[in-house]
Amino acid sequence: MTKILILGGGGMIGQKLARRILDHNIFPGADLTLFDRAFPQGGVPAKKITGNVSDPAMVQHLAAHRPDVIFHLAAIVSGQAEADFDLGWDINMMATWHLLSALKTEHEASGGTYRPRLVFTSSIAVFGGPYPDKIGDDFLAAPQTSYGAQKVVCETMVSDFSRKGFVDGISLRLPTICVRPGKPNAAASGFFSGIIREPLNGQEAILPVPETVRHWPASPRSAARFLTHAAKLDTALLQGRRALNMPGLSCTVADQIEALRRVAGQKAVDLIKPVPDPAIMAIVENWPQDFAPDRAIALGFEAEKTFDEIIAVYMEDDLPG
Amino acid sequence: MTKILILGGGGMIGQKLARRILDHNIFPGADLTLFDRAFPQGGVPAKKITGNVSDPAMVQHLAAHRPDVIFHLAAIVSGQAEADFDLGWDINMMATWHLLSALKTEHEASGGTYRPRLVFTSSIAVFGGPYPDKIGDDFLAAPQTSYGAQKVVCETMVSDFSRKGFVDGISLRLPTICVRPGKPNAAASGFFSGIIREPLNGQEAILPVPETVRHWPASPRSAARFLTHAAKLDTALLQGRRALNMPGLSCTVADQIEALRRVAGQKAVDLIKPVPDPAIMAIVENWPQDFAPDRAIALGFEAEKTFDEIIAVYMEDDLPG
Repeated sequence: MTKILILGGGGMIGQKLARRILDHNIFPGADLTLFDRAFPQGGVPAKKITGNVSDPAMVQHLAAHRPDVIFHLAAIVSGQAEADFDLGWDINMMATWHLLSALKTEHEASGGTYRPRLVFTSSIAVFGGPYPDKIGDDFLAAPQTSYGAQKVVCETMVSDFSRKGFVDGISLRLPTICVRPGKPNAAASGFFSGIIREPLNGQEAILPVPETVRHWPASPRSAARFLTHAAKLDTALLQGRRALNMPGLSCTVADQIEALRRVAGQKAVDLIKPVPDPAIMAIVENWPQDFAPDRAIALGFEAEKTFDEIIAVYMEDDLPG
Repeated sequence: MTKILILGGGGMIGQKLARRILDHNIFPGADLTLFDRAFPQGGVPAKKITGNVSDPAMVQHLAAHRPDVIFHLAAIVSGQAEADFDLGWDINMMATWHLLSALKTEHEASGGTYRPRLVFTSSIAVFGGPYPDKIGDDFLAAPQTSYGAQKVVCETMVSDFSRKGFVDGISLRLPTICVRPGKPNAAASGFFSGIIREPLNGQEAILPVPETVRHWPASPRSAARFLTHAAKLDTALLQGRRALNMPGLSCTVADQIEALRRVAGQKAVDLIKPVPDPAIMAIVENWPQDFAPDRAIALGFEAEKTFDEIIAVYMEDDLPG
């Protein structure tokens, strides 16, 4: 029986991941525990623990159960980490440090036999410009947001604790996840989902950046697949470089809008209202636009190839009614 | 009057830096304070504070004096950080976190007027193989030692605290510093100095790696120059990428030995005893061998061009008698 712990299991990706693990029987007979500050009504049926990941005693308690696989998705999103510096570093960095320390303590208490798989969700926000045309697997991480900096720090800690054998970690630098279901969150990237989701639901959406903005999205379904794939990967194949750029597709906001038009017509497109927001533009214009994620592809990670596919995934998985 | 604080001011580089600041009058009328666990007999005449950089209260006390320029050189060396994981992360990472936090507190208490220049000594140990022929300025940091990982984490924190305006930081990735005067230290790179220093002093030296090992050294004098140059640099020129690969020269151990032969003859070379050490080899074989440090050179950082120059610097600055 595989004991699985999802930190941030109440969030959108955490719930998708939990459902995927159960529906696809990814770990036969899995004993699944979700941890988060709060859980959605009618969410995935699994054991739930409510608490704050930045509480070291709570993290020690979670580690003491010696989960075989830990997905660490708990984070303050980019916009909030930029607005509240101290909170961002506390939740996005220090909590990961406490988690790694607690897992190391369990490793040592077990005489070295306990060594959990740790799948850490990093982000392409680790990158900062100027960029090459396509970002390769050996391009430097020079984050230009606190969120990105916190992800770099955590990746580096996960790698070093893994190199020493305390955990068996892997960090996935997720693309912009799009189309997110439900309500907007505080992520600066939220509008990339909003301009598709709201019109498909007959509602107006705000577009705070020009249509020429290019970005690197993948669907929530792909994100959940990346995570389960990483949980079962032979980490020896990583050859000591445990942070991977995930596949996605390079498209502009205009490409998104054209795909929306093909699916839902001009009436849907007319619901998108351009309202330029310099604060969001300042964050987004520094984001990477295109990648050559050769390592991840060679390791079997897969994402959508067109934005039409991304919209189709949203409609299949999440469109109400 | 410029208030200057050197953390790690009792160490070899700290002492060289302090002497350079005083002898070359780098900051006219400088008020210089050295902080370290201990200081050498007959060291540089300056204010000295003894303590442990991993003590948050002590770091707050140092920050409360609001130094204008802080050189942060305090660290556990690579060999020791590899042998004592917890101590390495405590001294090499957590202490820097406490320092940055304390400086941010002073920044805020000053109403935003206090924003010290912080020069952080990082290392080319942030890199891990496989490498291109020459490591460029946009090559990823994928450390394969705890020391290197700790340096990546600190660089990233220094950059983010700087981006937010709490400090004005810059991180210098120092080459292997060679020829180090005095006694060997616990750094895995110690032999690169030992095989020159000991023979020049008529003593036997151990060579734990093959002569074919290639590395990237610069002299202690260059290191002190890098640091003072960084302290006065217009950081706007860094354009948000505040960690810089420092210049050095690419040479093999055989090149070093030939340079020694030219200076001190076969008699000196005969004092080098090959005693292969797999543990040291395992660390050193992963180190970078050659760089194209274009950004640092464009910003005015300079190092030696030949190993003969590096030996000459040792003989001028440090050879006893």
